[in-house]
Amino acid sequence: MTGHWTESHKNMMLFSGRAHPELGEAVAEALGTELTPMSARDFANGEIFVRFEESVRGADCFVMQSHTQPLNKWIMEQLIMIDALKRGSAKRITAILPFYPYARQDKKHRGREPISARLVADLLTAAGADRIVSVDLHTDQIQGFFDGPVDHMHAMPILTDYIMDNYGLDNLVVVSPDAGRVKSAEKWANTLGGAPMAFVHKTRDVDAANQVVSNRVVGDVDGKNCVLMDDMIDTGGTIAGAVKVLKEAGAKDVVIACTHGVFSDPARERLSECGAEEIITTDTLPQSTEGWKNLKVLSIAPLLARTIKEIFENGSVTTLFEGDA
Amino acid sequence: MTGHWTESHKNMMLFSGRAHPELGEAVAEALGTELTPMSARDFANGEIFVRFEESVRGADCFVMQSHTQPLNKWIMEQLIMIDALKRGSAKRITAILPFYPYARQDKKHRGREPISARLVADLLTAAGADRIVSVDLHTDQIQGFFDGPVDHMHAMPILTDYIMDNYGLDNLVVVSPDAGRVKSAEKWANTLGGAPMAFVHKTRDVDAANQVVSNRVVGDVDGKNCVLMDDMIDTGGTIAGAVKVLKEAGAKDVVIACTHGVFSDPARERLSECGAEEIITTDTLPQSTEGWKNLKVLSIAPLLARTIKEIFENGSVTTLFEGDA
Amino acid sequence: MTGHWTESHKNMMLFSGRAHPELGEAVAEALGTELTPMSARDFANGEIFVRFEESVRGADCFVMQSHTQPLNKWIMEQLIMIDALKRGSAKRITAILPFYPYARQDKKHRGREPISARLVADLLTAAGADRIVSVDLHTDQIQGFFDGPVDHMHAMPILTDYIMDNYGLDNLVVVSPDAGRVKSAEKWANTLGGAPMAFVHKTRDVDAANQVVSNRVVGDVDGKNCVLMDDMIDTGGTIAGAVKVLKEAGAKDVVIACTHGVFSDPARERLSECGAEEIITTDTLPQSTEGWKNLKVLSIAPLLARTIKEIFENGSVTTLFEGDA
Amino acid sequence: MTGHWTESHKNMMLFSGRAHPELGEAVAEALGTELTPMSARDFANGEIFVRFEESVRGADCFVMQSHTQPLNKWIMEQLIMIDALKRGSAKRITAILPFYPYARQDKKHRGREPISARLVADLLTAAGADRIVSVDLHTDQIQGFFDGPVDHMHAMPILTDYIMDNYGLDNLVVVSPDAGRVKSAEKWANTLGGAPMAFVHKTRDVDAANQVVSNRVVGDVDGKNCVLMDDMIDTGGTIAGAVKVLKEAGAKDVVIACTHGVFSDPARERLSECGAEEIITTDTLPQSTEGWKNLKVLSIAPLLARTIKEIFENGSVTTLFEGDA
Amino acid sequence: MTGHWTESHKNMMLFSGRAHPELGEAVAEALGTELTPMSARDFANGEIFVRFEESVRGADCFVMQSHTQPLNKWIMEQLIMIDALKRGSAKRITAILPFYPYARQDKKHRGREPISARLVADLLTAAGADRIVSVDLHTDQIQGFFDGPVDHMHAMPILTDYIMDNYGLDNLVVVSPDAGRVKSAEKWANTLGGAPMAFVHKTRDVDAANQVVSNRVVGDVDGKNCVLMDDMIDTGGTIAGAVKVLKEAGAKDVVIACTHGVFSDPARERLSECGAEEIITTDTLPQSTEGWKNLKVLSIAPLLARTIKEIFENGSVTTLFEGDA
Amino acid sequence: MTGHWTESHKNMMLFSGRAHPELGEAVAEALGTELTPMSARDFANGEIFVRFEESVRGADCFVMQSHTQPLNKWIMEQLIMIDALKRGSAKRITAILPFYPYARQDKKHRGREPISARLVADLLTAAGADRIVSVDLHTDQIQGFFDGPVDHMHAMPILTDYIMDNYGLDNLVVVSPDAGRVKSAEKWANTLGGAPMAFVHKTRDVDAANQVVSNRVVGDVDGKNCVLMDDMIDTGGTIAGAVKVLKEAGAKDVVIACTHGVFSDPARERLSECGAEEIITTDTLPQSTEGWKNLKVLSIAPLLARTIKEIFENGSVTTLFEGDA
Repeated sequence: MTGHWTESHKNMMLFSGRAHPELGEAVAEALGTELTPMSARDFANGEIFVRFEESVRGADCFVMQSHTQPLNKWIMEQLIMIDALKRGSAKRITAILPFYPYARQDKKHRGREPISARLVADLLTAAGADRIVSVDLHTDQIQGFFDGPVDHMHAMPILTDYIMDNYGLDNLVVVSPDAGRVKSAEKWANTLGGAPMAFVHKTRDVDAANQVVSNRVVGDVDGKNCVLMDDMIDTGGTIAGAVKVLKEAGAKDVVIACTHGVFSDPARERLSECGAEEIITTDTLPQSTEGWKNLKVLSIAPLLARTIKEIFENGSVTTLFEGDA
Repeated sequence: MTGHWTESHKNMMLFSGRAHPELGEAVAEALGTELTPMSARDFANGEIFVRFEESVRGADCFVMQSHTQPLNKWIMEQLIMIDALKRGSAKRITAILPFYPYARQDKKHRGREPISARLVADLLTAAGADRIVSVDLHTDQIQGFFDGPVDHMHAMPILTDYIMDNYGLDNLVVVSPDAGRVKSAEKWANTLGGAPMAFVHKTRDVDAANQVVSNRVVGDVDGKNCVLMDDMIDTGGTIAGAVKVLKEAGAKDVVIACTHGVFSDPARERLSECGAEEIITTDTLPQSTEGWKNLKVLSIAPLLARTIKEIFENGSVTTLFEGDA
Repeated sequence: MTGHWTESHKNMMLFSGRAHPELGEAVAEALGTELTPMSARDFANGEIFVRFEESVRGADCFVMQSHTQPLNKWIMEQLIMIDALKRGSAKRITAILPFYPYARQDKKHRGREPISARLVADLLTAAGADRIVSVDLHTDQIQGFFDGPVDHMHAMPILTDYIMDNYGLDNLVVVSPDAGRVKSAEKWANTLGGAPMAFVHKTRDVDAANQVVSNRVVGDVDGKNCVLMDDMIDTGGTIAGAVKVLKEAGAKDVVIACTHGVFSDPARERLSECGAEEIITTDTLPQSTEGWKNLKVLSIAPLLARTIKEIFENGSVTTLFEGDA
Repeated sequence: MTGHWTESHKNMMLFSGRAHPELGEAVAEALGTELTPMSARDFANGEIFVRFEESVRGADCFVMQSHTQPLNKWIMEQLIMIDALKRGSAKRITAILPFYPYARQDKKHRGREPISARLVADLLTAAGADRIVSVDLHTDQIQGFFDGPVDHMHAMPILTDYIMDNYGLDNLVVVSPDAGRVKSAEKWANTLGGAPMAFVHKTRDVDAANQVVSNRVVGDVDGKNCVLMDDMIDTGGTIAGAVKVLKEAGAKDVVIACTHGVFSDPARERLSECGAEEIITTDTLPQSTEGWKNLKVLSIAPLLARTIKEIFENGSVTTLFEGDA
Repeated sequence: MTGHWTESHKNMMLFSGRAHPELGEAVAEALGTELTPMSARDFANGEIFVRFEESVRGADCFVMQSHTQPLNKWIMEQLIMIDALKRGSAKRITAILPFYPYARQDKKHRGREPISARLVADLLTAAGADRIVSVDLHTDQIQGFFDGPVDHMHAMPILTDYIMDNYGLDNLVVVSPDAGRVKSAEKWANTLGGAPMAFVHKTRDVDAANQVVSNRVVGDVDGKNCVLMDDMIDTGGTIAGAVKVLKEAGAKDVVIACTHGVFSDPARERLSECGAEEIITTDTLPQSTEGWKNLKVLSIAPLLARTIKEIFENGSVTTLFEGDA
Repeated sequence: MTGHWTESHKNMMLFSGRAHPELGEAVAEALGTELTPMSARDFANGEIFVRFEESVRGADCFVMQSHTQPLNKWIMEQLIMIDALKRGSAKRITAILPFYPYARQDKKHRGREPISARLVADLLTAAGADRIVSVDLHTDQIQGFFDGPVDHMHAMPILTDYIMDNYGLDNLVVVSPDAGRVKSAEKWANTLGGAPMAFVHKTRDVDAANQVVSNRVVGDVDGKNCVLMDDMIDTGGTIAGAVKVLKEAGAKDVVIACTHGVFSDPARERLSECGAEEIITTDTLPQSTEGWKNLKVLSIAPLLARTIKEIFENGSVTTLFEGDA
């Protein structure tokens, strides 16, 4: 018989884009390894160049990027990194997007719109990604936009543990800031001791079509401590408005919790001044508490590290924090 | 110059599977055309055979199927019809699925589950479908499961027009049967004169994890006429339960409305006996009012016919009943 | 150097759809392993749900399904299982179809027909199958419908061994029931000691085009013991007719042998009464001898088990029972 | 409304590779058009270069090639022509392969073999072919190797018409040269007035496995005029051998008919000397009667021209000579 | 016969991203049409949203974008526009990239690098582009990165006409700024009356590997008027250095010409001060002469307009300014 | 837990087409292994048949072919071998093309041309190749034609080492035979001690467009020893012409070096008589020194063997002879 036999080994390599290197390093540390060094720079006209400093042949590669501003640049950087890994003979490429960009455009609201969240999945496929890891997708259905394994992790346990440790379960009501998050709020309510629920309903004027005239609270919040939850907070307008109507409806304390603190201007001002006790988020995006009155940032790195470990070792991700994998 | 020039014409052809020929014929009639005749039969072991009786070369083909029981058979029949059209040189193939099968399995609820709604889109692509038309997808995100144009039509205007004509807008509240439909209910509420909203919240026992102990109504329904809406009703258990808790919470009359009346056993019994004034649905699936106390079936055929016409003539579907196309 | 190295292992997992669990268990037993447990159920409207009870990450997965009635349901179940494995990070997915469904529709007999056997291959690819194992495809060319490895196993040695053990080689003639199986019959004849051959030829009336007026035997069967073979028997009409004309042509005993005993109604009656000594088949489809006069079922499980073992261990399937792999 | 509307026209263009320009010109003439001129030459190292002399933008392009010796060169030339058409913005590309190359390798006879007939279909797809036209594929299943429309035309009516005109139907028997062609022979028999059939069976020595010891005729040919048919004749060994055993079995006159006269050496000698009355074939491959005793070549050009016309004009090919389209 | 026949029309629609609307409008004006209006805005976190104001069904769509800073944003915008057109049922989508981004990364210079120019082609395909139009690709081979028609237009005639009109042909030498552009320079030399050529060669120190010690002119420029040409000028360092060594080598006047004036900082300063008579470029990227001593901008819009017209009308692009189409 | 775990091994297998078996054997020997035996033969009509003599299941397969005359045949043979490996369950297939065929057709020089070098990459993909190894591609951009890893090795160090050992570095000038190779010549000049450069410029007559009137040397070669380099030499016309003008320009000795000695007629005569001291090449194509005055052939086998070893063992190819991998 011809052919040359040898034992097979496998190698995990971890890569981070330039958007949020601290998160990459925290994950590497939690895994007891190091990020593989990469040369990356911007050409004068904005074109990105990357090159890995070590051979990636045959490696099981995990490529992290945090999709903060300038978001489109970081998408392109991650795609370029994946292309370089593919052409450098990586064995398997897992794209890690703790915050999945363009997740809000997950359907056509009206005709002639894109479905950009699907487009992002297609671009990752075109570049060469074999699998995706993400945290708290805007809607669960985004898993189905990718034709391959998606490990969809949940930060809710991290956030609800913090709330239980710091606020207890008494007199709580879980509030969704709008009609679209009520299903998620129900999961929170079940985790937080079967708490009651409410949501803020945008009412429109009967005589003036398509104009929001007022928000009203559906459900009872009078005298209650409210956990106002969302998957992401961008400029904070909806959330700050929700705090206001909750207070008007008699709510006692309001705590805000979200996985993805995008916090575009003027979120910091709005949320610091809105009257909430505390704003709790994670570091799926780079965070700083500077200039905030009461922002609490919990780390997502241990969850990502455990996910990567299970993927590399072919364990089950399902047991991790009740993730859907 | 070589080459032979001639004018270009285009030809619309309409096909219907065997699941619900009445709907196909109603659509053909509304379009002023006929269904193209097809030989179809089942081999003794259940294999399906189809053959078209006329040439389909160069035609713009619309292939309707209604995904009623036995649902998997009708999926295969539609795929086989599409394969035959592709191999018969059809120019463009539009698969029409008034009720999109497996729409409920649009995400992994837990690990090691399929995303069957994406699988259905992939099977249609594999067979040769270029585009999809569907009505009231279980979630809008299913549009993004298909890599091509999806014309997503809405039956809500048909249903709400009927309600307004027969019940008026006074004293109405729109109710979602669970937390996941609150967003859709908000659209209905806006259409129905800015009506207030409520939903049924499943509470779990704090001491016995994962056990639903009771349903409670969130929002005020006391003395109100309730429009209890959903995209589809299968066995009717959730809906009948919702009617019960609404009545207990003081609701006056309850009208049930859904696009897709699947009505598997024992839906007819449950809904006939649940105390609702009327159950309103459409014929996206074959319907019969026999044995029902108060079922009203509205026809979806005019909406489908207009959609097909606009697609064939390259008009805008967006203006049709506020569809998302 | 960054990166974390470890030894590589591989894991075989075996799955069975619900169509024929006995075959799955027999194969598992022959392999000294167990079927991986799976939750599977039908929704009220016929939609199938599956979920695996154990992690399948990185596993070399073999997914068996037996395509008996209701055949389209079992096709969809196998596709859904494959989708779930793909999304659950299986390393490699081998679809095992002991009886390949729609194999008879392997070409367009006339225009505007599907090629459903190719469609089945495309659906398996779309769902995520990497490879196929099947037994006695209706035509060998079906191997080429799949863009990947197809291990095409042959049951003929199982059947011919039984015949030689029970009937000997003396005075045998191998008979094909129609013109399309003569090539296969030639292989049987060569295996059965270079036996002579015959086939049944459908003659048409010269004056009435396209009407079969009589069957006649081509080749000499007078006073011979006939082995009447086919790849599959469905309703048994052709085969029972062949027995009749063989007897009329002077045949002594007739033994019927086929790999796939579909036996749709009224096969049992027809074959029990047709005058054949014995009907020999395998359990590629679920079989019961109840109500049969003289049915013999041989097990295909050892052949499938050895095939799976060779695939998993990268051995050669070619030596197994002269399979084409 | 923006946008600029104009009427749509379509343009048929016909191209021929260099293997058999006479056939291309005959087809063009039958269509009342001309071949589009092409520069084609071979570089010194055998690389082929082609360039079209006229714009092909938006044209419905038909690319003929005849796969004679050196066959691999002509395959590459056709692929390169298709690539140039694709990059030159052709609207639709139909590859015409009157003789489909590598059709005999349509399955794996044993393990570790290619399925080259499927490979040819994949190469055509990779180059950019949208559809295929071919004549008398070695097996009908090859239609299913291509993922798109295949117009499979049949030369049998051309050949049988000639036989009926020149030999009549009396005392005819249709003979298949081996077990694999019996099914095709049955079609001929039905066309030729319901003639009886026979075939040549290769017998093997019981004591020396895998060794052909003799051929014997199955069926009655004594005193009959035999039509010995096949789809293709290469070196003529099998056919000449068949004539011999037919004569030994008492056959009167033998006429040989095949669609594809490959006629590799020493076919001319063998067939001229084998004792057949006449050898009838078509010009799917370049033919010359020089050096032959009794070769008759019928033209396939009218059939191809009518097929192209129907494809371009979206008519039905099915009515043409009972083709399967 | 069933089916509904009608005449076929076609519709050209023109779209422009937000990077360089003036170019889009100039092209539209040259075509005698208008840009289709589009809503486009940036979410607070940088995500882009687009929606077309008119139906695009069945239209032949041309989507222009100019890849200036912030380049990655404009790539994403063009991809999102294409996705929206695909999902909005556009018939054909042509992406127009006057300056092809990432063209310089058209190969791996060393291991573990991306080929970003290929990635860009793959991303356009993934989004749904059917064809590409570009001007003066950095290397011609980039045409082959896209699996479909690429109309590669050349601005050289625009630039050389200007030079001939303003400088004449006497005493000219065409100079390539480095070894990689000598082939292009040869084309310029042939167009400019068979002018002689030169190029600047980077010499390295024998004793210190990989260190450029000096540039020297290869070819004779003493007393000559030099046309220093390039496809693109970014920061202007190489070009300004080339002017310096040309002057040192005795060159008389130096005119700089390039298609793509990227002109990242500090190009304006460098080129204004480098001693060149004039810098000639086009508006493939947005240009302003403000702050420049001697910049001349020629318009590319007429060339693009004529290209679009020929594509829409299926004419030949090849005759336009000697483009390669 | 179900499932059967075992250690994972990997197996390298080496295959050679029939074009240049000596190279395959030299590579196998350098790797300390053997070529896997293969049955290969040509059918009478030129169709190629291959079959491997051993199981290739799960193997890491390297398939070498040397693309000499008849080049199209050897392309098809390599494609057929790859197809057989894919269908025989090879784990990974690396196509090795030491001389990449059709590399010169890497762009459209004018409209309506193919890009055959991209087509070759697409054909390899269609057949089933996962990766490519090649030596000195005509242009580096061809790497980007393949959607996967390309290990692009360089023979320059082999050639320049020989030159330095046999001719030294004194008084050298590196000469490109035309404008298109100046960039490559620059790399040679840097390797050869920072030698000066020159190239041959084809001048055209001002009055007779498109007619080459003379070649002239750009750069100083008077009294110099010239290294005239190219990637490939076909008929030798350009190179022999370059030697002539170099001599006329005062060059002393001229040594010719190229990686790929295609040497089609009349290269041997031309180059033997052109006045060059020596012609140096490698055995990427079969070579014989017979009939040559002064041909030197260096072996590429050690470079290929080391590349295969690094790929199989997941080492870095980048360090090998400065290859781009």
